[in-house]
Amino acid sequence: MTLSNLDRAEVVKRLISPRSIAVIGASADFGKINGRPLKHLLDKGYTGRILPVNPKNREIAGMPCYPDIESLPEAADLAIVAVPAAEVLGAVEALGRRGIRAAVIFSSGFGEMGAAGRAMEDSLAQRARECGVVLCGPNCLGFINAFDKVYATFSQYADGETGPGPIAFVTQSGAFGTAIAALVRQRGLGLGYFINTGNEADLGFSELMASVVEDPRIRVAAGYLEGLEDGDSLVRLAQRCHELGKPLVLTKVGRMASGARAAASHTGALAVEDAVFDAVIRQYGVLRARNEEQMLDMLEALSQPRTAAGNGLGIATQSGGAGVMMADRAEEMGLAVPELAPATRSRLAEVMPAFGAMGNPVDVTGQFVARPELLRESVVALMDDPGVHVGIVWLQLMTAHVDVLVRIFGEIQDRTSKPFFVCWVAAPQEALERLRALGIAVYTAGERAVEAAAALARWHAFRQRAAGRQALRPAGMPALPAEVRDGVQPTVQATEWLRAAGVPMAPVALAHDEDQAVALWRAARGPVALKIESPDITHKTEVGGVLLKLDDEAAVRRGFATLMQRAAAAEPAARLHGVVVQGMAQGHVELVVGVQRDPVFGMVVMVGTGGVLVEVLKDVAFRRAPFDEPEALQMLGELRMGALLDGVRGQTAVDRNAIAQMLAGLSRWAAAMQQRLAELDLNPVLVGPDGPVAVDCVMVLREQRTRYEAGG
Amino acid sequence: MTLSNLDRAEVVKRLISPRSIAVIGASADFGKINGRPLKHLLDKGYTGRILPVNPKNREIAGMPCYPDIESLPEAADLAIVAVPAAEVLGAVEALGRRGIRAAVIFSSGFGEMGAAGRAMEDSLAQRARECGVVLCGPNCLGFINAFDKVYATFSQYADGETGPGPIAFVTQSGAFGTAIAALVRQRGLGLGYFINTGNEADLGFSELMASVVEDPRIRVAAGYLEGLEDGDSLVRLAQRCHELGKPLVLTKVGRMASGARAAASHTGALAVEDAVFDAVIRQYGVLRARNEEQMLDMLEALSQPRTAAGNGLGIATQSGGAGVMMADRAEEMGLAVPELAPATRSRLAEVMPAFGAMGNPVDVTGQFVARPELLRESVVALMDDPGVHVGIVWLQLMTAHVDVLVRIFGEIQDRTSKPFFVCWVAAPQEALERLRALGIAVYTAGERAVEAAAALARWHAFRQRAAGRQALRPAGMPALPAEVRDGVQPTVQATEWLRAAGVPMAPVALAHDEDQAVALWRAARGPVALKIESPDITHKTEVGGVLLKLDDEAAVRRGFATLMQRAAAAEPAARLHGVVVQGMAQGHVELVVGVQRDPVFGMVVMVGTGGVLVEVLKDVAFRRAPFDEPEALQMLGELRMGALLDGVRGQTAVDRNAIAQMLAGLSRWAAAMQQRLAELDLNPVLVGPDGPVAVDCVMVLREQRTRYEAGG
Repeated sequence: MTLSNLDRAEVVKRLISPRSIAVIGASADFGKINGRPLKHLLDKGYTGRILPVNPKNREIAGMPCYPDIESLPEAADLAIVAVPAAEVLGAVEALGRRGIRAAVIFSSGFGEMGAAGRAMEDSLAQRARECGVVLCGPNCLGFINAFDKVYATFSQYADGETGPGPIAFVTQSGAFGTAIAALVRQRGLGLGYFINTGNEADLGFSELMASVVEDPRIRVAAGYLEGLEDGDSLVRLAQRCHELGKPLVLTKVGRMASGARAAASHTGALAVEDAVFDAVIRQYGVLRARNEEQMLDMLEALSQPRTAAGNGLGIATQSGGAGVMMADRAEEMGLAVPELAPATRSRLAEVMPAFGAMGNPVDVTGQFVARPELLRESVVALMDDPGVHVGIVWLQLMTAHVDVLVRIFGEIQDRTSKPFFVCWVAAPQEALERLRALGIAVYTAGERAVEAAAALARWHAFRQRAAGRQALRPAGMPALPAEVRDGVQPTVQATEWLRAAGVPMAPVALAHDEDQAVALWRAARGPVALKIESPDITHKTEVGGVLLKLDDEAAVRRGFATLMQRAAAAEPAARLHGVVVQGMAQGHVELVVGVQRDPVFGMVVMVGTGGVLVEVLKDVAFRRAPFDEPEALQMLGELRMGALLDGVRGQTAVDRNAIAQMLAGLSRWAAAMQQRLAELDLNPVLVGPDGPVAVDCVMVLREQRTRYEAGG
Repeated sequence: MTLSNLDRAEVVKRLISPRSIAVIGASADFGKINGRPLKHLLDKGYTGRILPVNPKNREIAGMPCYPDIESLPEAADLAIVAVPAAEVLGAVEALGRRGIRAAVIFSSGFGEMGAAGRAMEDSLAQRARECGVVLCGPNCLGFINAFDKVYATFSQYADGETGPGPIAFVTQSGAFGTAIAALVRQRGLGLGYFINTGNEADLGFSELMASVVEDPRIRVAAGYLEGLEDGDSLVRLAQRCHELGKPLVLTKVGRMASGARAAASHTGALAVEDAVFDAVIRQYGVLRARNEEQMLDMLEALSQPRTAAGNGLGIATQSGGAGVMMADRAEEMGLAVPELAPATRSRLAEVMPAFGAMGNPVDVTGQFVARPELLRESVVALMDDPGVHVGIVWLQLMTAHVDVLVRIFGEIQDRTSKPFFVCWVAAPQEALERLRALGIAVYTAGERAVEAAAALARWHAFRQRAAGRQALRPAGMPALPAEVRDGVQPTVQATEWLRAAGVPMAPVALAHDEDQAVALWRAARGPVALKIESPDITHKTEVGGVLLKLDDEAAVRRGFATLMQRAAAAEPAARLHGVVVQGMAQGHVELVVGVQRDPVFGMVVMVGTGGVLVEVLKDVAFRRAPFDEPEALQMLGELRMGALLDGVRGQTAVDRNAIAQMLAGLSRWAAAMQQRLAELDLNPVLVGPDGPVAVDCVMVLREQRTRYEAGG
């Protein structure tokens, strides 16, 4: 039997919150991998039934031990499988027969061991599906559900305190994940769920996270990724997190499965997979943490319950230098450090020492040691400023003043409803713990506090932006003429499709002979470009297949002949369909636009600044198709050379909205075409006073043969 | 009396290592600012004489207290001045009369209070010079010399353990500096000196650091800066640190005193002061830490005694993902993560578990818990690899295995002479302390360990690079004709000077009338550019004062008249000297080169990629003049668009050495000219197959009227 999606979701829910747990291969030695879960379940007070299975034991720690899966007195909600790799398949089959629908497989010796292991893992996954058993793992540490005291794990993280908390953490790596979990514990933030997905033979990162993020006790989702195959699941997870109002923070190292990316395409070569990942998760409101420390910093900010209604940062500090450092970092991170309103300045003037600084950052100096009300009233005034949406108070050491400072920060917390963080460098540990107990996010380095504040502001800005926008759904694929084949498409055909989709294209026509070329030149009433037309030649310039600015009959006639000869010489096997004749387009800004079928995320649209910039600077931005005009404007905003669009050296500015319309229209068409479109290069796109126009187009179709066929 | 430089250095030495200390304004209340130094000196066992001065007391803690400075029984090496601001001047005069040559002034109420305070501080500084008293402060926390147990401070840092160590730390900020000192203590690295310079009315950062860095017990110098006025002193300090083989690590926030930077110049506008600071300190081998955490990470790496003979990083890890993260960061930081030699791979194959990874990063997995020798032998093999110069071992948690791991790391340390760091995420505190006691640098985050390793490698690379190079000394100023005046220089004159200095310049000649212009065009034997020539017009294009590619008599004749008319219309008051006639230069790469007189560092040379790039991307590199060709090549290597030099889109590569020669020659001339040259723009410099040639030149002279007159 196999499971429907609905059943599967229910089984995963039971897996994570089981009323009973069978431990297959249970050991009475609680130091061993197959004994440790029993120890933790007993020690930490799991209230469900524990059902050890091992023919070698009659009982373990007073619990009856069953000789085999068949003998189990009930179909447990979850089986922990801790037997040698060779025995896992049989165990899973037995679980299926016994009606046990979920298993977490600790056993290693599968995909991580190379080709033979991978084959074994594929068999396991297939057999599990056939038997109707959902798998977590193999080669994983298992998981912890701290709410229900489920310790289906042998992770050393479980050795210490594992009280529940608002964070759900799912990790592909056992070792790195354990480290992150331990850091969460060090900070006292609280993990509700800790899940190590291991080899993901069946359940993957996104599906497991999607299950636990529904728990109302969870406020923040955090993930550690090393690779990703199913981009659609991740996108759905991100969208669901957004609906639930729960931020999703991801750290990813390494490369994604890059699949059979076509290396032939020029634009394709620019598409570093990590850049696509980074762009797409940002598009769907996921916060990316570059490493484990930044993840912890973000989790601390996002775990506190207050929201940032804007990106205005108020800084109060005991050191002018620390204030400057934080203000500089704020600017880099996209936060504003606003001028304070006159009313705020008046209030500050009343309470501040004479040599303090009343701007933002507010420098309260060290005087508050003698007069604590200085600090309290200054910070409350700062937080009340209408331009301030999140605050940071910086101080250092003050070992002798913890009591008074904790009291003051508590009072400040009561007198403002905006989030404010304490950055306490070289803080006494006690101070950090007491402030966190008050619900205040605490940092020990100024730049890190600013980065965390920026993450908080970014999350709320995304929610505000997304709130007013319609979700885009890919349209159905347009009907293509029956004679359309895979491969490079005829320029005229491709141009017509794109123009119909709202993409401005330079007018083109195909000449089969010199006379037609001349007639088309005459019709163009101005200089034309000639380009060789062949389904076998992707890069026309490399075979000398392009001639520009021809404007008399002789030149056009000679040009046609030249291109046909050159192409035949360079690519004797290529089918030559003739020469495309195209009027010369105008535009002083050069862009490059492309679409590629990403093996992880499906259709991805790229825009970059053209010419040498795209090659040297790799100044490009990506988005998953489809997207709307506001999203396309964000793309343009990410280009480092985007100022070129606004007029440099006396050039007139071009219309960003017109480019955004082009990109959004292209993205809708590309999403609809994702079963057929493999890649598309519009290079260059010239932008002038009349908006953008694509002056070259290479479109390649290739029938989709992966799971992406099912659509986005 | 005033002090000679030699005397002054001796006085500063005594200030920091005094045999006797007078405390002016000493309080018997050891909780007060003026009592705390006495407490610390007594508690921590200062062995010199302590001489309290205060008319209100007859004795303090059993020590005789003197009513006034005049009554002191000896001329103490140091006076601590802790009296109200209004009494400081009188106290300093009294010190001078009593023959006391050095004072640290705690008192605030000077420059930090605004204009009135600044005036008071200037008077204090001048009077101190006249009295022959050297000052540290005012408005400072004072300093600690932990070797001699000198606690001339009221910093709360002194409240805790302050055992000596190999780091000298000098800070402009009291609050931020205290925080950093406390972080050094948290890590157990050891501060030999802690000095807060305060307002620097007399002694500045560089002079104080220059004094303590001579102490043979100091191995590393660390500084925190908020501003800098005397760039020459900092350069001399950096050079001295280099001679001593002691790395200098700086964190700087805020802007430098920007002085009267001319805003008129186009290139000048690009010269963000921080970019200049950053470039110049790098030029002299200073390591910059972007914040306090990075400073600590660098100090830890530089405090351990081993050197990195190259930039090859060996990584051993318990988590594949952590290895990828560190390898990615290494690449970003300029470290290589080399392939391992066959012999290394064979050794690893012998000791590694089957599913470990034997490449670099080496993934030793968690198996070493069961078999510790796996870890030891793997890491020793890795460190023995000839391509590895520094190693990092990554692990996490392992609370139950601290003993065995510390033993293993000690054995590894004994079996390699290369530096290797331990990165232990979520480490038990005990493990960190025990490893540091073994002389091993320890980190708790992988990327930070890599950044620290990169700093270590960068420091040693600088030493190797600098070892083979002659120090450049500025030449004397070339004799200028008596009629040369300040202001914009005649193009022909400026061009001749630069050409004589080895800077390739396009040939130019001045036409006073149309006939001369035509004659010069004929002599050029090709198209020419015409440019208006006026000492009052800096930006010729802005008044329409440039015409390009003129190649017939009528055009040249008309061009001359047009330029004279346009200039007269745009700038009626401008003196028009005629029109410069210049042959059109060739070159497919466009650079911009400039020189500016930086208020902090003197003559600074800039090179950038030209055209729109310099305006939008600000792709520029700076160096302090003079510098040699290898340094100029480094500049070119810093340009983000430097790939343009190597040929893009089929363009031929240009000769980087020829550009480097131009820059180095220009830098030597600029350094010699620093008393007169205010700014110079060569924009554009075209680079083609025949090397670079400057096709436009704006040179402004202005007599130097600051201390830079004395020369570099």
